[in-house]
Amino acid sequence: MSKVNIKVLADQLQLSVSTISKALRDSYEISDETKKKVMELATRLNYIPNPYASSLRRKKSKTIAVVLPEVADNFFSLAINGIQSVAETKGYHVLIYLSHEKFANEKTILEDCASGRVDGVLISISSETNSADHINKLQANNIPVVFFDREQEGTETARVTTNDFDCGLMAANLLLQKGCHKPAFISVSESLPLLQNRINGFKAALNKASIPQTDQQIVYCTDNDSMYKQVKSLLQSGHRPDGLIASVEKIVTPVYLACHELNIRIPHDLKVIAFATLDTAPILNPPLTTITQPAFEIGKAAATLLFKGIEKSTFDLRRERVVIPSVLIERESTM
Amino acid sequence: MSKVNIKVLADQLQLSVSTISKALRDSYEISDETKKKVMELATRLNYIPNPYASSLRRKKSKTIAVVLPEVADNFFSLAINGIQSVAETKGYHVLIYLSHEKFANEKTILEDCASGRVDGVLISISSETNSADHINKLQANNIPVVFFDREQEGTETARVTTNDFDCGLMAANLLLQKGCHKPAFISVSESLPLLQNRINGFKAALNKASIPQTDQQIVYCTDNDSMYKQVKSLLQSGHRPDGLIASVEKIVTPVYLACHELNIRIPHDLKVIAFATLDTAPILNPPLTTITQPAFEIGKAAATLLFKGIEKSTFDLRRERVVIPSVLIERESTM
Repeated sequence: MSKVNIKVLADQLQLSVSTISKALRDSYEISDETKKKVMELATRLNYIPNPYASSLRRKKSKTIAVVLPEVADNFFSLAINGIQSVAETKGYHVLIYLSHEKFANEKTILEDCASGRVDGVLISISSETNSADHINKLQANNIPVVFFDREQEGTETARVTTNDFDCGLMAANLLLQKGCHKPAFISVSESLPLLQNRINGFKAALNKASIPQTDQQIVYCTDNDSMYKQVKSLLQSGHRPDGLIASVEKIVTPVYLACHELNIRIPHDLKVIAFATLDTAPILNPPLTTITQPAFEIGKAAATLLFKGIEKSTFDLRRERVVIPSVLIERESTM
Repeated sequence: MSKVNIKVLADQLQLSVSTISKALRDSYEISDETKKKVMELATRLNYIPNPYASSLRRKKSKTIAVVLPEVADNFFSLAINGIQSVAETKGYHVLIYLSHEKFANEKTILEDCASGRVDGVLISISSETNSADHINKLQANNIPVVFFDREQEGTETARVTTNDFDCGLMAANLLLQKGCHKPAFISVSESLPLLQNRINGFKAALNKASIPQTDQQIVYCTDNDSMYKQVKSLLQSGHRPDGLIASVEKIVTPVYLACHELNIRIPHDLKVIAFATLDTAPILNPPLTTITQPAFEIGKAAATLLFKGIEKSTFDLRRERVVIPSVLIERESTM
């Protein structure tokens, strides 16, 4: 069956395309009788207006984009729910694009967004991203951008984050307070400011407690596939830590499995704390102490700001900074 | 800064909009000298062509939609990765739409997809969906549709699923073999054919083992918020099961927490098996026996079929049925 478009309607009614188009737009130039004929046929043939054409007229796509590194992390799925809760009340569609942690993908996605397909963009940058040009181009095209969670410092716009420095400090202090002397921090990126903030908090706590630099290990596991191997070799090294901070939730399973494999008991031999919104944290063996980010609220706040930017061109997004604190939930893994 | 469009270029060069448009399309009607001037200014002002306008000419959006109930389930995030792995090789964008398990949302999303925004749709239906009209309308508009995981029986098109009946049978047989006499099945929807297939497999195994109907419990937990309460009251009832099959992974945490609360030991008092692709299954307390769906492969196979439908209008999607079997991984929860 061929697509029903204005031309099909025009052919069947022996009218011009322009007449059909005007009739569908309820133009005063067209008689009521003709309008009725056109509408009846359009309904009968299940005609659907082409949004590309009507977007050209309306200049609004009624769509926002959410650009994310991945959805396998619970943080992002919860954040999406927060975003969607706002978009629904505005009658907007939400399109989700995944960069898969690749800068090249993120760039292509934003080029696509730049060209009228969406009215605004919420972005959490990939772990590879360390320049801002591709994001600034969007803004130069009058498409408002709001960062959530992972921000890029070179772009002047609103950002909604959590208190990453304080959380790094809080995690380290908990480990110190539970008797750790050689805690390590496992990161997944050398460039994400968010992880750098957590690391800075971690270091500040250790410096304050006079832990020597040599006992302040930062380990970078940038490759998903070798994470288990890297964690295992850290735990087998001469510099074996007595406490671990997992900077993102996907590090948790490799850490637990490596400990099991090496007969390292959590929390007796190694205390573990993770930045995670893992649903299963309380039923792990042992239950996992987490720093839980307010993912839903971060998504909601970011979307609320973006819609202000979309609806009022005078609203200055550059002034907006929202920090929603995370929550420490102590469980057996740090007892 | 205002958006750079063809009109801006035309004003600055004192040429007509139509001349600029033709120059950008490299039309033979325009002199090389003019073309050069236009291209230079377009590059300097960072002009980006409007994709809505160019899509109208090209008739291809180079975009596919993936319509899903949610992303919090690992199955769907892995399936998205499989889909994206194919779309990337085709140079296509992937837009992800979430129905949040609501039929009304799914309907609006498909109306949006029907109108030229995308070239094809991969869909896993919401748990509320029990009619096919909204999907059939898409096909009537010549937009190919492929089901993955959750299908709608009233639509004739390709579907990529796993062996749900066999898996229900396999899960029940494992519980029986481990000594259960009163196993229960927890479902989250009364209408999804996929869950009905799993239940049918479960019942077939129990009937074959001559388990009386009164000891074949099917429990429906359709509301996320009351799941914990419902599971707890099942475990406190006179009809307390000695084995549980969780039909989707979000049931796992409520089950483990309720058992902990009620001092029911897994696997001693209750054996548990779940349909899940949970990363943390091996580190739960106790490690969880799972029936693991080949999520990545299902996504990949569905996308491969969809692109055949998009690229060759003669390719008959209706004949295509792909079933990729799931894998039973035994762990301590059923020992």
